[in-house]
Amino acid sequence: MNRPSVALALVHHPVLDRRGDVITTAVTNLDLHDLARTALTYGVERVYVVTPVAEQQRLAGRIIGHWSEGFGATYNPDRSQALKCLSVAETVEQALENFRSSVPGPVQPVLTAAGCRDGMSIAAARQLLRDESLFVIFGTGWGLAPEFFERGWATLEAIHGPGSSNHLPVRAAAAIILDRLLGDRDF
Amino acid sequence: MNRPSVALALVHHPVLDRRGDVITTAVTNLDLHDLARTALTYGVERVYVVTPVAEQQRLAGRIIGHWSEGFGATYNPDRSQALKCLSVAETVEQALENFRSSVPGPVQPVLTAAGCRDGMSIAAARQLLRDESLFVIFGTGWGLAPEFFERGWATLEAIHGPGSSNHLPVRAAAAIILDRLLGDRDF
Repeated sequence: MNRPSVALALVHHPVLDRRGDVITTAVTNLDLHDLARTALTYGVERVYVVTPVAEQQRLAGRIIGHWSEGFGATYNPDRSQALKCLSVAETVEQALENFRSSVPGPVQPVLTAAGCRDGMSIAAARQLLRDESLFVIFGTGWGLAPEFFERGWATLEAIHGPGSSNHLPVRAAAAIILDRLLGDRDF
Repeated sequence: MNRPSVALALVHHPVLDRRGDVITTAVTNLDLHDLARTALTYGVERVYVVTPVAEQQRLAGRIIGHWSEGFGATYNPDRSQALKCLSVAETVEQALENFRSSVPGPVQPVLTAAGCRDGMSIAAARQLLRDESLFVIFGTGWGLAPEFFERGWATLEAIHGPGSSNHLPVRAAAAIILDRLLGDRDF
C-alpha cells in the first residue's frame, strides 16, 4: 500500500453507558461481522477490536479464527476474506501504533461522537485522506469516554439526517462514515 | 406529511440463500433495532418487517411491543421512539398498499440488489424523491428472490466501494442508502 488508507478501531473500553458512567462493553459477534464486511466493501485496511479484557480478546480471536481459518472459512469464503481484516488490540494506542507501523505515510487519529457539531467536516477528512492515512475511532455503548477528547485528536462532525435523532447503531454509523469518506460522490 | 417520504421494507420471504435457493429467513431482533434507529435518524416514515410466517409476525410484534410500550419503553425512551416506526406485514404488496394509503402523493417501489450495476442511480432517486415517495425494498439472506425483478419495478444501483467485495450486511446497506438518498450532500 503506497496510497493513504483507512483503519477503524471499535473501542469497548473506556466507553460510556447510558447514564454517562465509564464502562467496558462486551465484544459482540455481530459487530465484528458487520464491520468486517463493510470494511472489505470500502477497502479498509484493518479493523481493530479494542478491549483490555483478556477473556474478551480471546473471544474476539476465536470468532476471527473460526471464520478466517476454521469451518467457517470453507462454509463461507467471502466471510473468511472479510474477517481477515480484523485484529485484536488491548488499547487504542496499541492499535494506532500497529497501524502506523503498517502504512508508509503519516496517520491521523480521528474520533467519532454522535453529539459532535463543530468537528472536522467530511470534506476536510476526504481532503486529508489524499496525503495521510486515517485511523477512525468508534465507541460502543453510548460512545467514547471523555478522556479521548482531551488528547488533541480531531473529531469528525457527527452524522445528522433529517430525522429527529441521531442514535445510530455503531454498525450503521461506521458504514455511513466509510461511504462518506471513501464512496463515489457522483450524485 | 405533505412532502414525499421514504419507507423501507425488510423482506424475509421470498429471498435467496447462498446457493440461490428461495427460502424464508428468520426475523432478528438486531435487524429490527438497527433499521428502526437508522430510520429515525433519517426521518423515514415506516419500516415494514415482511414475513408470511405467523409465528415470526408475532415475534416481530412482541419485539416492537416490548420496546415501544413495555418495560423497554421506560428503560430506553429513545429506543421506544425508534421502534414505533416498525410495522409487520405478510407480503410486500400488503406493505406497499399500507404505505400508499398513508401518504398523499404517488409512491414508487424500488428494489435493491448487491449485484445491480445498471439500475436507477442515486441521483435519479434523489430527483424522484422531490415529487414521489419511495418504498425501498431490501432482502435478508442472500437478497431478494428473482420474482421481484419481474414486476417492472426499478432497481437501485448497487453500492460499490473501492474494496474488492460488496457483501454488505443489510443493516449497513440500508444505512448507506438512506444516507445517500436523504443525507446532506455538502462534501
